[in-house]
Amino acid sequence: MADTISERTKGRLLELMRLFENHALAGNSEPVTSAQVEHLTGWPRDTVRKDISCLDGGAVGSNAGYDPQVLVPLIKKALKLDRRRKFCVVGLGRLGSAYLNFTPPELVEFDLAAGFDTNVNRVEILSSPVPLYPAYKMAEVINRFAIEIALLCVPSEAAQAAAEKCVGAGIRGILNFAHAALSVPPDVTVRNVYVTDELRNLVIQITDNE
Amino acid sequence: MADTISERTKGRLLELMRLFENHALAGNSEPVTSAQVEHLTGWPRDTVRKDISCLDGGAVGSNAGYDPQVLVPLIKKALKLDRRRKFCVVGLGRLGSAYLNFTPPELVEFDLAAGFDTNVNRVEILSSPVPLYPAYKMAEVINRFAIEIALLCVPSEAAQAAAEKCVGAGIRGILNFAHAALSVPPDVTVRNVYVTDELRNLVIQITDNE
Repeated sequence: MADTISERTKGRLLELMRLFENHALAGNSEPVTSAQVEHLTGWPRDTVRKDISCLDGGAVGSNAGYDPQVLVPLIKKALKLDRRRKFCVVGLGRLGSAYLNFTPPELVEFDLAAGFDTNVNRVEILSSPVPLYPAYKMAEVINRFAIEIALLCVPSEAAQAAAEKCVGAGIRGILNFAHAALSVPPDVTVRNVYVTDELRNLVIQITDNE
Repeated sequence: MADTISERTKGRLLELMRLFENHALAGNSEPVTSAQVEHLTGWPRDTVRKDISCLDGGAVGSNAGYDPQVLVPLIKKALKLDRRRKFCVVGLGRLGSAYLNFTPPELVEFDLAAGFDTNVNRVEILSSPVPLYPAYKMAEVINRFAIEIALLCVPSEAAQAAAEKCVGAGIRGILNFAHAALSVPPDVTVRNVYVTDELRNLVIQITDNE
């Protein structure tokens, strides 16, 4: 199903899912109308309706609007987000430690399974909701727990070597917080969260606004 | 100058700047060729040359390649990143605390000026390189220090109210880490770092790769 959905629709469905989830988390049980979605996102309501009509189960809306309880699982299925995935945190400095304890309610489809750091002392001292291991055990642990995703929170200069360790251990996707471009084999996916670039982009947009 | 540069070129220049910075930070003083840039980014070298030719100072390259020491300041100038900007961290939980201590070497054009939290106890206890204040002092402090940017690290359900406080205090740009869509006036810029969405996008790409 997901193969027939365009990239843009996938992006909008992902954002819709977040909107509907927040609506439900805020304790609202009323349906959401496509006019409300248009107001919140700026997308024309016809686009919203068309995106939602791509989902299995076709006519999910009523005149009253869309029911988040019905829609969120359908979007998850269409985007193949309905299987739980395990992730680990690599690099347990301040940012990595923060993500060890990152459990927003909407993150239900992901299970944090382990944390790694080259500093054995840090691994022993840090308090954590999941087991922590020295980096030399990465291959063994990632294999044993079938961990698919790594949050890479090491310093920039250590990022490429750490990414290669992840790939060697069987990691399929890396969310890279290090300010470095990673070079990985084509069957491994990398997404970068460059906070410095985000700040710079913010300034560029502020300046355009002046 | 920046007004005549297209959005796509701006995006590439930003990424080029990061590449050149990392090259210099790694202790390399040799020039970087457009062929090397092509290899690292996947952009055709003609595109790279054309992007760089948009910069003031035109012929910045030689046959040997581009000198990062020359190029980085030119890109900063073109993107109007050459004026230092002050930012603050709003919400001092684990993620906010991590960003209080976020000082990657390439972040030179930004100065962290203050941190805020509604929890007065937390503000008093946390160790921090900059002064921390209770949230009710936001307007006063942001004004006094002429802080332009806020890193919003509060829980999702508190994000909209915190964003409104930022806007009321004169913040021009918000980097939002909360998993919530913010509604702000048109002259305020918001960029969202939705880690959950990044993870979900990663899974979508992994699945597409299968």
